[in-house]
Amino acid sequence: MSSSAPEHAASAPQCLQLNRFGQLRHFLSIEGLSRELLTEILDTADSFIEVGARSIKKVPLLRGKTVVNLFFEPSTRTRSTFELAAKRLSADVLNMDIRTSSTSKGESLLDMLRNMEAMASDMFVVRHAQSGAPHFIAQSVTPNVAVINAGDGRHAHPTQAMLDMLTIRQHKGSFENLTVAIIGDILHSRVARSQIQALRALGTPEVRVIAPNTLLPAEVERLGVKVYRDLKQGLKDVDVVMTLRLQKERMESALLPSEAEFYRLYGLSAEKLRWAKPDAIVMHPGPINRGVEIDSEVADSPQSVILNQVTNGIAVRMAVMSMAMSGQMAEMAASQEVRP
Amino acid sequence: MSSSAPEHAASAPQCLQLNRFGQLRHFLSIEGLSRELLTEILDTADSFIEVGARSIKKVPLLRGKTVVNLFFEPSTRTRSTFELAAKRLSADVLNMDIRTSSTSKGESLLDMLRNMEAMASDMFVVRHAQSGAPHFIAQSVTPNVAVINAGDGRHAHPTQAMLDMLTIRQHKGSFENLTVAIIGDILHSRVARSQIQALRALGTPEVRVIAPNTLLPAEVERLGVKVYRDLKQGLKDVDVVMTLRLQKERMESALLPSEAEFYRLYGLSAEKLRWAKPDAIVMHPGPINRGVEIDSEVADSPQSVILNQVTNGIAVRMAVMSMAMSGQMAEMAASQEVRP
Amino acid sequence: MSSSAPEHAASAPQCLQLNRFGQLRHFLSIEGLSRELLTEILDTADSFIEVGARSIKKVPLLRGKTVVNLFFEPSTRTRSTFELAAKRLSADVLNMDIRTSSTSKGESLLDMLRNMEAMASDMFVVRHAQSGAPHFIAQSVTPNVAVINAGDGRHAHPTQAMLDMLTIRQHKGSFENLTVAIIGDILHSRVARSQIQALRALGTPEVRVIAPNTLLPAEVERLGVKVYRDLKQGLKDVDVVMTLRLQKERMESALLPSEAEFYRLYGLSAEKLRWAKPDAIVMHPGPINRGVEIDSEVADSPQSVILNQVTNGIAVRMAVMSMAMSGQMAEMAASQEVRP
Repeated sequence: MSSSAPEHAASAPQCLQLNRFGQLRHFLSIEGLSRELLTEILDTADSFIEVGARSIKKVPLLRGKTVVNLFFEPSTRTRSTFELAAKRLSADVLNMDIRTSSTSKGESLLDMLRNMEAMASDMFVVRHAQSGAPHFIAQSVTPNVAVINAGDGRHAHPTQAMLDMLTIRQHKGSFENLTVAIIGDILHSRVARSQIQALRALGTPEVRVIAPNTLLPAEVERLGVKVYRDLKQGLKDVDVVMTLRLQKERMESALLPSEAEFYRLYGLSAEKLRWAKPDAIVMHPGPINRGVEIDSEVADSPQSVILNQVTNGIAVRMAVMSMAMSGQMAEMAASQEVRP
Repeated sequence: MSSSAPEHAASAPQCLQLNRFGQLRHFLSIEGLSRELLTEILDTADSFIEVGARSIKKVPLLRGKTVVNLFFEPSTRTRSTFELAAKRLSADVLNMDIRTSSTSKGESLLDMLRNMEAMASDMFVVRHAQSGAPHFIAQSVTPNVAVINAGDGRHAHPTQAMLDMLTIRQHKGSFENLTVAIIGDILHSRVARSQIQALRALGTPEVRVIAPNTLLPAEVERLGVKVYRDLKQGLKDVDVVMTLRLQKERMESALLPSEAEFYRLYGLSAEKLRWAKPDAIVMHPGPINRGVEIDSEVADSPQSVILNQVTNGIAVRMAVMSMAMSGQMAEMAASQEVRP
Repeated sequence: MSSSAPEHAASAPQCLQLNRFGQLRHFLSIEGLSRELLTEILDTADSFIEVGARSIKKVPLLRGKTVVNLFFEPSTRTRSTFELAAKRLSADVLNMDIRTSSTSKGESLLDMLRNMEAMASDMFVVRHAQSGAPHFIAQSVTPNVAVINAGDGRHAHPTQAMLDMLTIRQHKGSFENLTVAIIGDILHSRVARSQIQALRALGTPEVRVIAPNTLLPAEVERLGVKVYRDLKQGLKDVDVVMTLRLQKERMESALLPSEAEFYRLYGLSAEKLRWAKPDAIVMHPGPINRGVEIDSEVADSPQSVILNQVTNGIAVRMAVMSMAMSGQMAEMAASQEVRP
């Protein structure tokens, strides 16, 4: 069959996220997505910002579609933003909080997914403690369903990265002349991994990570970043300061002497922030630990864009959901045409 | 008052499910429903299959109605299918997960129900560990509310039975020449009880149950089935093989020597399936225990229609909900007319 | 700036609930609201009673608005009524069940609220174990969000009081010639506190409380009520008997000798009810403890209007939500106009 070649190509790992026309079909990671596509996501999100400010915050793009929040790892916060985004797109939303234990066997996970699929679900929003779970789901079980990664293990949190990019673009115009620094626990952070990929794909000339050795992944330079152990040096000439949430459970595993020690060296105080450019913006993925990775004085200052990030989170999720749904439908229509 | 006679007749136990015009008003069990009415449910469900395949999976039949999922026994899976069905009918859905403990006294159960009713609920979808609870609710407390049984104790699971019937009809055309075998724990299964009633009411000439003595109810022949203890004999000339989920907690109560022993005698392998007709279809209410009551090779084979059952589950629930709502409204309108 | 004065006035504690035009903007307590405004709430609720009786129980007043149920104290019952009310107003509803523990620090509560706000929420329905929490939220963190108090500590439960007032008005026409008695645990009851304020604001000439000393707040007379320790004397010539739920956990703290003792002295039996006027109505906020604060014979008698209260609860919540939303929007529009 002459059509099998492009179909096969479309499901190869590197372009699992795209349909045969190069449109978004699943949103699993920043990796492998072009600057053009990432820019299209940001432009689409920009148009949804306006929807959030309207009196009637509702567009009919996903009307009659079923969005299932498959949360294998609990997260009220992230689930709420996806639920709100889906409802503002007029979708029907089903929340499934799944204990990992009851689906510990890959086999029963597959069965559960095939069931959800058979109920004519159109989209799975997946949160999972294991890296790669959303890829696995997109690859193995969902010919008809668009999959959105809402955070998987230490791997990726691509909607978080895109809302960060939208926030940067709103405040700095473009990425082309920026120096961006990410401070904190890079090693365990899916957020940082996705941020670095997005910043680089969008053409940011200099991305820095600032952390102690114990919180840096092996061969971190391979990600295309400059590494600083010293905060003062790392913040010099920086336009955007991205802080990360310090996972307190990591501290307990003795990767750092203490919270107080982390704060002394890497906690962002107003004084330390002066080491960056005077018009630098400060970001945080939330929820913030005030007085640990960031001071209240900084979090509440005019340089902080933390609440803009939250607002942009809804818009970016609306953008990604509507784009993936439309790419998925284009793929389905095309694959039906070529069948005899 | 001349109108009291028909009203009284309509609320007599045997026709509690029907309004004065013989239309569905509550859906509590297969028992007592005519072949015509069951066929109407299947035909209505057929029309909703098409809705699930549409781009906009939504019809306005229950718009502005309030459907309350009253789950006294937790079941994410069944609740989700009812929630989806109700949302695709455009209803407002309220999920109530009620611990049985807090309503252990019949009195407070009644008060809770009257409260839900006073909130202008239109439909209760009831799941309860006690057999007869949905009947009790339909009979005692709901002049204005349609009640749908989503599984009660060992008694009935009528929407499951009807989705099974829809699946059989799709694959075999009609029930008139079929031999159907149900394998497994008949004793504890509300699914099997409802399946047997539906198969017989729809005119299936031969319904078999295949199980060890310990998993058969007393006087099982009274249900109108042929009983087999031997799988090979039971499967001979069978068109439809219905497997049941093995409740692992039953095994612990020593009704069978072991899971392995059950599998050896009654687990459906590809080899054993050859004892049935070559075009026999295989069904399971889900979730499946692979390698216990059914082999993966069988569950994933072309003879398996397990995922069709899931898809049909939404359509059947939409059918039953919309029919009961319209029967309930016809009854209400008629009972208001006859009042002075 | 000439406009700063009215803006400041509008946010002063005593009129935090009202916008610059004197319209409802938040609904936090009965205290400080005029007879005219309370009457407007009742009139608006009356119009929603009709919606609940319609075939399509839906009005588009909150279409495209996001209502967040922020329940810091679990209450399925109250949450359900707000959820239903919001859905019948066509709002998108997000349920947030928040353990008090995770937001024990005021700081992180504020951050959480600012986050919900940044997601373009339009209304918070707040239930909290601490008195004053909804005021705090309305005052500190929500320039754009209307706040509805769904019960805070021992302080207030204003929607409960208003549904009670609606019920009284339906049965007694007006408040001007009524004698109303509230029986039971006045000390711990936010319901009683709000009822007393509402009854007095609406012009009820005589409001009585009937309770043992241990269940009366200090200086209870200051609330403008007559105090009775004896049920027979207290019920004499009464038009409306309001019973309260006896919190069993209070009994354990030895404020009363026993449940049986409370019942003997203050439990409302048919016999004791005869001490009131023959056409007195009996109310209870639910859920009722039959045989403790009220007898079944009374709860189910024609004098009982307990289920009317439940029905009115939806209508009153729809009224308060739609009025606060429209007052909030008028305030926002006005405050934008005066900016340069």
